[in-house]
Amino acid sequence: MRKIICNGLVLAAAALVIDAAAAPAGKTMADVLAAAKPSDWRTLDPENTLYMELAGGRVIIELAPEFAPQHVANVRTLVRGKYFDGLTIVRSQDNFVVQWADPAEADHKKSVGEAKNKLTPEFDRPAAGLKFVALPDPDTYAAQTGFVSGFPAARDKADGTAWPVHCYSMVGAGRDNEVDTGPGTEIYVVSGHAPRQLDRNVALFGRVVYGMELLAVMPRGPAPMGFYDKAEQRVPIREIRMAADVPADQRTKLELLRTDTQTFTDLIEARRNRQDEWYKHKAGRIDVCNVPLPVRVASN
Amino acid sequence: MRKIICNGLVLAAAALVIDAAAAPAGKTMADVLAAAKPSDWRTLDPENTLYMELAGGRVIIELAPEFAPQHVANVRTLVRGKYFDGLTIVRSQDNFVVQWADPAEADHKKSVGEAKNKLTPEFDRPAAGLKFVALPDPDTYAAQTGFVSGFPAARDKADGTAWPVHCYSMVGAGRDNEVDTGPGTEIYVVSGHAPRQLDRNVALFGRVVYGMELLAVMPRGPAPMGFYDKAEQRVPIREIRMAADVPADQRTKLELLRTDTQTFTDLIEARRNRQDEWYKHKAGRIDVCNVPLPVRVASN
Repeated sequence: MRKIICNGLVLAAAALVIDAAAAPAGKTMADVLAAAKPSDWRTLDPENTLYMELAGGRVIIELAPEFAPQHVANVRTLVRGKYFDGLTIVRSQDNFVVQWADPAEADHKKSVGEAKNKLTPEFDRPAAGLKFVALPDPDTYAAQTGFVSGFPAARDKADGTAWPVHCYSMVGAGRDNEVDTGPGTEIYVVSGHAPRQLDRNVALFGRVVYGMELLAVMPRGPAPMGFYDKAEQRVPIREIRMAADVPADQRTKLELLRTDTQTFTDLIEARRNRQDEWYKHKAGRIDVCNVPLPVRVASN
Repeated sequence: MRKIICNGLVLAAAALVIDAAAAPAGKTMADVLAAAKPSDWRTLDPENTLYMELAGGRVIIELAPEFAPQHVANVRTLVRGKYFDGLTIVRSQDNFVVQWADPAEADHKKSVGEAKNKLTPEFDRPAAGLKFVALPDPDTYAAQTGFVSGFPAARDKADGTAWPVHCYSMVGAGRDNEVDTGPGTEIYVVSGHAPRQLDRNVALFGRVVYGMELLAVMPRGPAPMGFYDKAEQRVPIREIRMAADVPADQRTKLELLRTDTQTFTDLIEARRNRQDEWYKHKAGRIDVCNVPLPVRVASN
């Protein structure tokens, strides 16, 4: 007999509920997903989707142009200029981030081609114009958290801004001390407990929606901050392509549960108050970074 | 040039501040640690310390008898009966837990020897009698969070209880649906974003204080809930011993920063409002599971 710690069928992270009281009582997440309609699911826009090919398989990143349009555009240009092909994972810091970049010294850096070397910061943006679906639960860091188009986010009504938050699997543009030095040439993925202190300090421009388990197990680097100190420790990136540039029959047919549906509202309530028999104490609340965003591979 | 995402020198997780206002302004965590006195550090009690030996190295777990005295006693008995020696890691679920157990079918289960097969639940306890050092910051799940003897914890003044919380690296006793079925024969470690919905549902009885990076990179299992479905996927546990039973010259000389010191109070304030030049927006708050608990290996 296996003693299990129940986490249900979390496939990835992100979602939300605007009206928890409306959720049907007594349903588990599995019940909610089983009752989902075809229209509750969405596919990815191939112009907003990166395929990162590693020896271990494919990692898929959904881009977030609503939050970081310049970074998304610059990363597209870098990808189409084959900037990342042949670069490596350079860093894996336990309970923090995995990062890839050109490991070469400054004098031998790979050209960014037609991409930009500097971008003005995109750490937050006006909340106006975003469809923000709010969680009712309190958050340590932000006045309010919720979801925007499938990305975990926060907003502050006092100053009118909104920003994506650093949950597990979120993707950002590493930078130096100057705020304009993160053009997307060095990319990190959150691989540990949400480092929310990074919110509003760096441009998050996407999220790993498939293959996160390949990045999460990268051996932790022995140098400070998890950097690898020997070339042979670095895992090569075969290539990163826009899904739009990959032949249709080689694309991964993902479907993501929409965050603006009643099904999602029901799902979140099923996670705030677990109905699984295993749970004896219901949390009654949920952290934005504990909300699952179901992803499935569609059959042909 | 490496673009870095600053996490300072987090070595493990857990700590706290009772009087943030008293912390010296402008100090980074490195500054605070550099100024620590020898008396700010503690060593582990060898009777409350497990050494888990894997091919990749040693994992060290500090036990928490203040929270789960029966579970701690039962695990000691299991360890001294060599129950875990030769068992395996049976499960690694992405962004959730790593777990070890006897993978044998029920008919061939290893005997627990003099240990107990059932224990009454130790999911929470009276807050009275604990030295609880409270964080000032709001928490999604609990009325108040803080630290007790180096373990992240929560309490509820309304019902007078306290409990350890499921932060990264916390160690608990897996159970079946019945609450008395988790005697410490199947042990899990939190390896992802804090699954706080488990709080008060399961007995947490310790924390990995060294070697967490060895467990965190276990390949994710392909079966539901991250279980491995083939024997060859399971990583063997050479042995688990009480530190007290290991010759003194083979022990790892760890020192942990005390959580009941002014140095720790200063450290937490340095993390709530980062002074590092990289940070442009100071969080002003901290999640109990983002508070680092520095651990160092003492020189001889």
